[in-house]
Amino acid sequence: MIQTDIAIIGAGPVGMFAVFEAGLLKMRCHLIDYLPQAGGQLSEIYPKKPIYDIPGYPSVLAQELIDNLQKQIAPFHPTYTLGERVEGLEKRGEADFVLTTNLGTRIEAKAVVIAGGLGCFEPRKPVVANLEEFENGKGVNYMILEPEFYREKNMILAGGGDSALDWTIHLANIARKVTLVHRSESFRGAPDSVNKVMKLAEEGKIELILNTNLTHVHGNGSLHSVSMEDSKTKEARTIEADYLIPLFGLSPKLGPIEGWNLNIDKNAIEVNTEDYSTNIPGIWAIGDINTYKNKLKLILCGFHEAALMSHSAYKYINPGVKYTMKYTTVNGISEF
Amino acid sequence: MIQTDIAIIGAGPVGMFAVFEAGLLKMRCHLIDYLPQAGGQLSEIYPKKPIYDIPGYPSVLAQELIDNLQKQIAPFHPTYTLGERVEGLEKRGEADFVLTTNLGTRIEAKAVVIAGGLGCFEPRKPVVANLEEFENGKGVNYMILEPEFYREKNMILAGGGDSALDWTIHLANIARKVTLVHRSESFRGAPDSVNKVMKLAEEGKIELILNTNLTHVHGNGSLHSVSMEDSKTKEARTIEADYLIPLFGLSPKLGPIEGWNLNIDKNAIEVNTEDYSTNIPGIWAIGDINTYKNKLKLILCGFHEAALMSHSAYKYINPGVKYTMKYTTVNGISEF
Repeated sequence: MIQTDIAIIGAGPVGMFAVFEAGLLKMRCHLIDYLPQAGGQLSEIYPKKPIYDIPGYPSVLAQELIDNLQKQIAPFHPTYTLGERVEGLEKRGEADFVLTTNLGTRIEAKAVVIAGGLGCFEPRKPVVANLEEFENGKGVNYMILEPEFYREKNMILAGGGDSALDWTIHLANIARKVTLVHRSESFRGAPDSVNKVMKLAEEGKIELILNTNLTHVHGNGSLHSVSMEDSKTKEARTIEADYLIPLFGLSPKLGPIEGWNLNIDKNAIEVNTEDYSTNIPGIWAIGDINTYKNKLKLILCGFHEAALMSHSAYKYINPGVKYTMKYTTVNGISEF
Repeated sequence: MIQTDIAIIGAGPVGMFAVFEAGLLKMRCHLIDYLPQAGGQLSEIYPKKPIYDIPGYPSVLAQELIDNLQKQIAPFHPTYTLGERVEGLEKRGEADFVLTTNLGTRIEAKAVVIAGGLGCFEPRKPVVANLEEFENGKGVNYMILEPEFYREKNMILAGGGDSALDWTIHLANIARKVTLVHRSESFRGAPDSVNKVMKLAEEGKIELILNTNLTHVHGNGSLHSVSMEDSKTKEARTIEADYLIPLFGLSPKLGPIEGWNLNIDKNAIEVNTEDYSTNIPGIWAIGDINTYKNKLKLILCGFHEAALMSHSAYKYINPGVKYTMKYTTVNGISEF
């Protein structure tokens, strides 16, 4: 069992900086993240993008900011559980938490800080009754990880955004047959992609079915066909397919955190702005995952929240202990 | 008359960053500071000191941070009134303020942000009834700007800290006579300086009077002599002097801001943590000069306060106008 003072769920920039603020107060931190590396979205989604609103940086690449935070927190030797998702939270007695990940790792902590950013991204799904029967390798997928996997397959893609358009164009040359089903007749994607898809349809290289909603999926253990209905004429049709790929975008979800009895408002955790504590004593939420009146989802705001949270957690972990805040400019950093 | 959207009193790091956050929302700022340059204490007091707790900077020299902030706000072309102190604040109608400085400069603004740090530093004064009669060039000074001014003068210095010790040592070779008066017999200054002062006293190069408090000052238009009392024996004595220099340290004062009907608690301005607004609509206070529950006097907290203040000021200046926050990572910076 891993033991720490503060378990920080989420190793993005705000979770990382919390290690620094906690470290100044002599508290040790353990960071847990579902991504395989620290840095959150900055490292995973836009490492090479410049950020302009980090105070004191006219411009900084996302990964450069993460690298600098890594150096800044190094004196406090944070430990990590990466590539695992926290699923269980158990409160034992007054001030002890045990967190459990999807891989069974257990972390014991005196305090818990949720710095989970926008949460986990989960695919938006069409409203089709028995869709889930065919998930997990049985014919219904919500993202395309490896297009070659679909070579010579008979596929139905669904959606009207860039993702559906781009994959239709890409797979037209790979799959045996591609059918794109879209609920309206206008697309939300780039005009150039829309033109390409229209041309492929005219040339008979894909089948394009507009103004149509998916209604049922059929098969015996694995997908065999998909039923759909024209939204104007109400005419129904069923098309054979090896794979159905609904590409309706990703929506952020809190995931297992939703089951922890925290006060939630629109996918975010409600906190007290006095110290960014949640409704459960011993649990704080900082950064994009929290919400309060006038909340701005800015990294710089998460840094401030990390500082106030650390002082509050210190008082929670060390009740009655007096301390004086020491300025780093005067005292420097005391490495653990 | 200078005209601007937001008048920012105080051009330290937090006031400077407020220009950036306001600029993202298309509001122009004018900064006013009593110091002759932007950067506040960082540029004035500790430009070469490293700071360790700016998020994303494992270490940064104070002046380097200010230089970077200067670059970061450059696209929004802030204007400055430096070397002047804001003294008057007048609210005209619903949403118009006019600020006046000690040199008569007038600034018209739709909103006012006080980012004054620890305020103005004013000398601590001994409790001596008619001391103020001899201020302003009549014999009583609270700081030594130019030691040569005191050549061949008869001086009394008072105090027991480094400032009193260092100036006693320095002036021993310049003034005709130096008397150092201290209320106790132990000094708070560096041991080396204490030894030097003791040696000068032994050698008769200065007069050292311990355990003694100043009681009266005498003169006719200009200082003539100073009375004091031994705190143990209660014995009184009067010593002739051209100059009395009490060196009891500097204490931060709000200065003229105290007369603006803001809610003040222990030299700091009370704000609402929802947006860092004060009790007067149209006036915000951010950074070290404000106070609220769990306030931490950290630059990084001031940055967050600047961001929330800017959104609040935007709504105040543009009532009813809807806006969507745009992320700089997506949209970059639009220079004015």
